[in-house]
Amino acid sequence: MTRKQLVEQIQQKKSYLCVGLDTDITKIPKHLQSHPDAIFEFNKAIIDATKDICVSYKINTAFYEALGLKGWQAMEQTVNYIPTEHLKIADAKRGDIGNTSSQYAKAFFETLNFDAITVAPYMGEDSIRPFLEYENKWTIVLGLTSNAGSKDFEQLRLVSEDTNHGGEFLYEKVLKKVSNWGNKDNLMFVVGATKASGLEKIREIIPDNFLLVPGVGFQGGSLKDVSKYGMNKDCGLLVNASRAIIFASEKEDFAAEARVIAQQYQNEMAGYLL
Amino acid sequence: MTRKQLVEQIQQKKSYLCVGLDTDITKIPKHLQSHPDAIFEFNKAIIDATKDICVSYKINTAFYEALGLKGWQAMEQTVNYIPTEHLKIADAKRGDIGNTSSQYAKAFFETLNFDAITVAPYMGEDSIRPFLEYENKWTIVLGLTSNAGSKDFEQLRLVSEDTNHGGEFLYEKVLKKVSNWGNKDNLMFVVGATKASGLEKIREIIPDNFLLVPGVGFQGGSLKDVSKYGMNKDCGLLVNASRAIIFASEKEDFAAEARVIAQQYQNEMAGYLL
Repeated sequence: MTRKQLVEQIQQKKSYLCVGLDTDITKIPKHLQSHPDAIFEFNKAIIDATKDICVSYKINTAFYEALGLKGWQAMEQTVNYIPTEHLKIADAKRGDIGNTSSQYAKAFFETLNFDAITVAPYMGEDSIRPFLEYENKWTIVLGLTSNAGSKDFEQLRLVSEDTNHGGEFLYEKVLKKVSNWGNKDNLMFVVGATKASGLEKIREIIPDNFLLVPGVGFQGGSLKDVSKYGMNKDCGLLVNASRAIIFASEKEDFAAEARVIAQQYQNEMAGYLL
Repeated sequence: MTRKQLVEQIQQKKSYLCVGLDTDITKIPKHLQSHPDAIFEFNKAIIDATKDICVSYKINTAFYEALGLKGWQAMEQTVNYIPTEHLKIADAKRGDIGNTSSQYAKAFFETLNFDAITVAPYMGEDSIRPFLEYENKWTIVLGLTSNAGSKDFEQLRLVSEDTNHGGEFLYEKVLKKVSNWGNKDNLMFVVGATKASGLEKIREIIPDNFLLVPGVGFQGGSLKDVSKYGMNKDCGLLVNASRAIIFASEKEDFAAEARVIAQQYQNEMAGYLL
């Protein structure tokens, strides 16, 4: 998927919502749990109920791998079921030395037909390059994540090369360096919504790249702040919600309830896109 | 597998060799490529030919995922075929927020019966903890990797908290912090062999943990240096070789030739273990 296609979809749907399919078999409605294709049946219902109000689906590979072969099969079925208009993200957090990253890129961009994959930056340039070599595919590199552990390394301060004193944070260096390895047409960054005001500084470093933003609650103000500080002229945001949407109800009405929540996100987003 | 079991196996076999099953379908011998279970057949032959002279097998998940469902099946078959005396490592480089890392831990420690998994540290403590909660399982965290990209972030210098001047490298901070989250019985680190002399400094930070060392060529001196600077009183080393062993020959004698190379590593190791 090209950037133009993504931006057009955002404008048409007045939405920059990404629905996260973190499909935990123990959390789906009881009546589905014994179904032979439980995960896929659940995902199918969620996709059918939300596809006109979201622009992207994000499959969290961990929940599928935990089920072994059956899980991998459900992931294949799901990615094939998502309409082509949606950006299909493998939230896989992969990354390894060059020849191994090439195999991961093949796994998610060729064997499975994803449009995008999340990648961890720790191992540096040759761990990220193989993903960037694919045309019309997206590499989404971890910048500043929304979990508590982001303090442990991402938010450590590096020595400035000029002064030998305190310079930028590690995650800022990651954004700066990695953005030079790709461009706004093939590279996005994961930026957690924990401190939405920090987005201003992040936008100084990477004004043009799309950001994939997890950890955003609706009606809690954070979607407002993320949109205010993170949006650029092409929108430049994909805001992800997973459990809040897909597990909105534990009952047979789960898909309808998922739509209700997704609709609340989308309504609010439409206002910020004006 | 416990540390005691691992150390006993090293002493019995006079080997700290880990054979990396980076089984690239395009590189296995031609006569096997059309076999319906090509990957597993290849791995089985390699395992049969090397199991008495190595103490661990490392499955590089990327090469299996690239083949989709069939690849995941080959991974299952292979991990089940490896004798229980060997430390079975999933070289998966996983890591995500807490509830997702729990799913990865389940995938590799429960659904697949691995003894160990490699984990990326970027997202911090809650991304690593779920793996450490399993008894008699090992978490192998990336410290200093052997690829060129290790310069990009791992080898950046952090500000010292005391002086506000240049302090330790990021990878040193990773070793220091992460080693406090686990212990020598459940936590190892990946340390590349590119600069074996740097192992002395690393051993000051983590004297007791096992190190998984990739990038070691035999007869080139690096195994000697890695052993000299990295070994501790329990050996404390697992030296991995992948392509040098498994692709030693492209012909029907591939397993016998793999054994020849593995034997060369083991012979040299026996000398350092004296």
